[in-house]
Amino acid sequence: MQQALVLEKKGVLSLREIDLPTDVGPGDVKIAIDTVGVCGSDVHYYTHGAIGPFVLREPMVLGHEAAGIVVEVGSEVKTLKVGDRVCMEPGVPNLSSRASKLGLYNVDPDVRFWATPPIHGVLTPEVIHPAAFTYRLPDNVSFAEGAMVEPFAIGMQAASRARIQPGDVGAVIGAGPIGIMVALAALAGGCARVFISDLSPDKLKIAGQYPGIIPVNITERPFAEVIAEQTGGWGADVVFEASGSPRAYAGMLDLVRPGGAFVLVGLPVEPVPLDVASAISKEVRFETVFRYANIFDRALELIASGKIDLKPLITGVFDFKDSIKAFERAAAGHPSDVKLQIVLSGKA
Amino acid sequence: MQQALVLEKKGVLSLREIDLPTDVGPGDVKIAIDTVGVCGSDVHYYTHGAIGPFVLREPMVLGHEAAGIVVEVGSEVKTLKVGDRVCMEPGVPNLSSRASKLGLYNVDPDVRFWATPPIHGVLTPEVIHPAAFTYRLPDNVSFAEGAMVEPFAIGMQAASRARIQPGDVGAVIGAGPIGIMVALAALAGGCARVFISDLSPDKLKIAGQYPGIIPVNITERPFAEVIAEQTGGWGADVVFEASGSPRAYAGMLDLVRPGGAFVLVGLPVEPVPLDVASAISKEVRFETVFRYANIFDRALELIASGKIDLKPLITGVFDFKDSIKAFERAAAGHPSDVKLQIVLSGKA
Amino acid sequence: MQQALVLEKKGVLSLREIDLPTDVGPGDVKIAIDTVGVCGSDVHYYTHGAIGPFVLREPMVLGHEAAGIVVEVGSEVKTLKVGDRVCMEPGVPNLSSRASKLGLYNVDPDVRFWATPPIHGVLTPEVIHPAAFTYRLPDNVSFAEGAMVEPFAIGMQAASRARIQPGDVGAVIGAGPIGIMVALAALAGGCARVFISDLSPDKLKIAGQYPGIIPVNITERPFAEVIAEQTGGWGADVVFEASGSPRAYAGMLDLVRPGGAFVLVGLPVEPVPLDVASAISKEVRFETVFRYANIFDRALELIASGKIDLKPLITGVFDFKDSIKAFERAAAGHPSDVKLQIVLSGKA
Amino acid sequence: MQQALVLEKKGVLSLREIDLPTDVGPGDVKIAIDTVGVCGSDVHYYTHGAIGPFVLREPMVLGHEAAGIVVEVGSEVKTLKVGDRVCMEPGVPNLSSRASKLGLYNVDPDVRFWATPPIHGVLTPEVIHPAAFTYRLPDNVSFAEGAMVEPFAIGMQAASRARIQPGDVGAVIGAGPIGIMVALAALAGGCARVFISDLSPDKLKIAGQYPGIIPVNITERPFAEVIAEQTGGWGADVVFEASGSPRAYAGMLDLVRPGGAFVLVGLPVEPVPLDVASAISKEVRFETVFRYANIFDRALELIASGKIDLKPLITGVFDFKDSIKAFERAAAGHPSDVKLQIVLSGKA
Repeated sequence: MQQALVLEKKGVLSLREIDLPTDVGPGDVKIAIDTVGVCGSDVHYYTHGAIGPFVLREPMVLGHEAAGIVVEVGSEVKTLKVGDRVCMEPGVPNLSSRASKLGLYNVDPDVRFWATPPIHGVLTPEVIHPAAFTYRLPDNVSFAEGAMVEPFAIGMQAASRARIQPGDVGAVIGAGPIGIMVALAALAGGCARVFISDLSPDKLKIAGQYPGIIPVNITERPFAEVIAEQTGGWGADVVFEASGSPRAYAGMLDLVRPGGAFVLVGLPVEPVPLDVASAISKEVRFETVFRYANIFDRALELIASGKIDLKPLITGVFDFKDSIKAFERAAAGHPSDVKLQIVLSGKA
Repeated sequence: MQQALVLEKKGVLSLREIDLPTDVGPGDVKIAIDTVGVCGSDVHYYTHGAIGPFVLREPMVLGHEAAGIVVEVGSEVKTLKVGDRVCMEPGVPNLSSRASKLGLYNVDPDVRFWATPPIHGVLTPEVIHPAAFTYRLPDNVSFAEGAMVEPFAIGMQAASRARIQPGDVGAVIGAGPIGIMVALAALAGGCARVFISDLSPDKLKIAGQYPGIIPVNITERPFAEVIAEQTGGWGADVVFEASGSPRAYAGMLDLVRPGGAFVLVGLPVEPVPLDVASAISKEVRFETVFRYANIFDRALELIASGKIDLKPLITGVFDFKDSIKAFERAAAGHPSDVKLQIVLSGKA
Repeated sequence: MQQALVLEKKGVLSLREIDLPTDVGPGDVKIAIDTVGVCGSDVHYYTHGAIGPFVLREPMVLGHEAAGIVVEVGSEVKTLKVGDRVCMEPGVPNLSSRASKLGLYNVDPDVRFWATPPIHGVLTPEVIHPAAFTYRLPDNVSFAEGAMVEPFAIGMQAASRARIQPGDVGAVIGAGPIGIMVALAALAGGCARVFISDLSPDKLKIAGQYPGIIPVNITERPFAEVIAEQTGGWGADVVFEASGSPRAYAGMLDLVRPGGAFVLVGLPVEPVPLDVASAISKEVRFETVFRYANIFDRALELIASGKIDLKPLITGVFDFKDSIKAFERAAAGHPSDVKLQIVLSGKA
Repeated sequence: MQQALVLEKKGVLSLREIDLPTDVGPGDVKIAIDTVGVCGSDVHYYTHGAIGPFVLREPMVLGHEAAGIVVEVGSEVKTLKVGDRVCMEPGVPNLSSRASKLGLYNVDPDVRFWATPPIHGVLTPEVIHPAAFTYRLPDNVSFAEGAMVEPFAIGMQAASRARIQPGDVGAVIGAGPIGIMVALAALAGGCARVFISDLSPDKLKIAGQYPGIIPVNITERPFAEVIAEQTGGWGADVVFEASGSPRAYAGMLDLVRPGGAFVLVGLPVEPVPLDVASAISKEVRFETVFRYANIFDRALELIASGKIDLKPLITGVFDFKDSIKAFERAAAGHPSDVKLQIVLSGKA
């Protein structure tokens, strides 16, 4: 039995004792959790009780963006040792599956993902996890940054699938947390400039604090007009859709250059109208992004090197005992919040 | 002035004298046309007077799938000589454009394409064309086959953009002429098997005559069910959409394996509903195909080597003087017709 | 204790009882071996006692190209059942390694590979193997063909890494067993034609029996001269080096087109002289091939579909009790031999 | 007749009048040259009279790294106007060639390249050049930076061909001007860190002034040892060979991770010994780089955005009348020199 932030049912959180696994397998490590970020999906389970086919049917521990310290290692673990500061990849696939053998373990249908019903998350002092999905933090990367690797990894996956050429011009639709992560990854991943669009001045201000990210308020001017002006009418080389809004799909083809690419990250609830004829006339490519695979190492490289600074995006820190307040604030949706974190080590 | 098949206006064809260019530039060749295929787009201009933004406003010569014999070469031409048997790529881009320099000359906005208003086509005894877009026929490739290279090139472009891995399982939605071309190119391009779906038993019979192409009549059984059964539930590696039907987009995601690819070839008139959430959950890639670039050489390689036999798809041959009959038959739409050709050399 | 073909030390084979693992783990299957091919590496251990850093230090069972029938399945195996006819991938990596997670399990340094010291091979009636590396044979694929999948997989890996475009012209240096496998895979994988060079008329005759594979005897004419003539001076799109001979590297750059690719499969004993300046002036790409990963499924697809027929390459079949004779013949090196197989089911 | 820096023969330079083309074709522009960089190849023609097959046989104007201002435009030029500040791509291919149509115009055998015998360079007040290979400088990019685009483009081509994934670890062998350009492009193009090796403390100091570029003096410690230590024994994702030294090829394979890539930029005079067996055991890929294609736009994007600062590499500026001194200094080879420039506008 250990303390945990438990989503009892839609709308009801409690901080209480719960029975969690304690057996450290030969390939596992036990991690004392230090910091856990609050993700939009955690909040969505809290407010709606479900995301698509994943429905909360029994109490579940929340949290999947986590960093901590190794306190025990399994008998076969060679890559980590007690005392290592680490962050964790929250999805554990079947490594013997056909998808995993291809290197696409993120799309393995049998993946078990923290805080996705019925799998418990990690807002609890100790968790057990496979060493293969636990990554050592470089010395100059803090726990707070370590807990940001998971959301940043989505941006990295998007930038990887884009196949950016050095000096490309990027465009990102939507300046929410994921849009900002995508823009940062695209910039670090080779883009010279990344334009980002939104309706919210608050969100655009946060995004625009980074040199190389150029905010565009689409209440003032159409995004495509800005892109055309800034690229001599040629278009962006790669456009990331990070809003999930069906409206983003209207006129989307005007943003991209002939032979350019879209990367679809945002998750529309319903099918969206795609202008295939326009896509064909420019012969564009569309990539889609589902979580990430083989990204954590490279995300940590970029954070440790200083190319990526995620600290300005941490806009609120809560002690574990105030976890419910953190979720209430996240559910309220302050426009200037990007990422709230919960600290379990008592050092918040 | 030379004889030509002229589309005077929507629905009105005439075989008459018309004034066409006669100046052979330094990089050009003059070709005596032997054979011209009748394309769906030619027929569409005949029956509707327009395709999308391209509207017939003055009389235009039809025809863009052509083979013939070189009768004159420009002063700087080194790659061809008088007497060479050739086929021609019907689109001529601005080779100095940004798209052309990238090798994407098919998406150069300034491309001039035969029989696309206001550019004349080639149903006329002689045409002038840049040598750079004129390809010598290997000795064992007939004029009839040479005139098939253009429609086959679309299938080849689709197969190229798919990035087929040797032994992939392919699926093609739609067994019209383009669907069959795509299936053949996918098979020659590395697929082990290609499943092709349609409602028409006639079309499926034509497609199914080729070993390795497996017809599926979707009035009898859902395509996704067949693919799942044949791939152990994994899905096709690459799915080609060659119908242009919005209905094809519903349930389309069930056809493909995790991490697989779609290639969109068919041209829907309106935006289609795309299930982005399902696409994301399998992290699929979508490619689109606009005509072709750098394909004719390789298409001729495959035809000459015997890996591709397009002759069974030529289902009707007309003499030039009967051109209008050819178009009337094409417009009527016989279910067992794939490709009608018109022969100008008098050897039909 | 079970009967096996044991390499006692360099030059000494015996067919005798040996102690082998008997424990079927939860993810394993037990396979009754039907057919095992004799590979050049098996023969090299027999004649030389070592390959590079792999040195025979204690008796080892030979054989790694195998097909058989499942006779027992582990408790967690869902993809196979008793009675399934199967072939096996002989290398078992650590699936949790960084390379394996990337899909590159073939270059995982911890891979355990049959008949590579000190790991036992499979010339023995029963073996235990992970289900994840055991592949069901389609009904129309025989055990003999199943045992050919392993060597063919090397050709497939080469064709995959080449990134063949449909209609490419291929060239293969060396018409030994691997060269032929590469040529077949390149042809099935999209090449229109594949030229193959050797000094041996016997080997070229075997290769040339396949339509699309064009043998070139380099004692009669330089390979580059033939390629230039057949491609209008342009060069082959992709060139596979399958001889491992340092002499093949001299003049190799003349074979390839500007922007083309080499795939290095053959294993030279010493460093070879590479003409980097010529490579740079054509901006060519070099890929290398180490065994294979994620290939067996697709190899089986091609064999089952009939695109690939490996049966003509089986040039001798021996009963298990005559295994030593098979190795003696292989070691003698008959020029018209491609693949010898040993049958353990008593049905040779 | 116009003033120019003429290489009369090996070792003899003069600043004198020479007859140069004056005809501005319909697709051309005339440019008043402002700044020209001195390249190692210019210096090599001066000191040796030849580079490989290119031998100076008659007097030739030197210089190919240039920026200036448009003073006249041809009748068909739409992309530029008089007064535009520009830099120029020094190689002009035949755009109708097979290589150019593929987008590989850099490997077109018919390319005409400034200051490569017998083609004149641009150390002269006015030159005529195709608009298609003339690029407008963004307002915040100086002529001095514009004249740096050409050498930087080689680094960019190397980084493009590497197919860097965001967060990769890079390594560059050789910290000469090209090595530094490669390191900067790799960093801007997605690498988190780039290690660069050399024997010269001066060169390493220049390279090491850039955050993210980590100098390694191989007289103190083997490069492979540093890379192994810094990557946990895994190796660099991509290794650029920019020294052209045969010694660099010995042990080179120890630098790279399993499945990683080499990019060969440096030009060895003789064939070098390549350890193919080690390359195969890691299944690495080798790319080669010949000049650049479709790079200038993206290089200018990176310079204008501030991601790339080339100004610290300009270590000496000479007035046109002192051109010969510039070449004498370059030929003498000061260890702390990277790039010398000559200014023709009188504003040096």
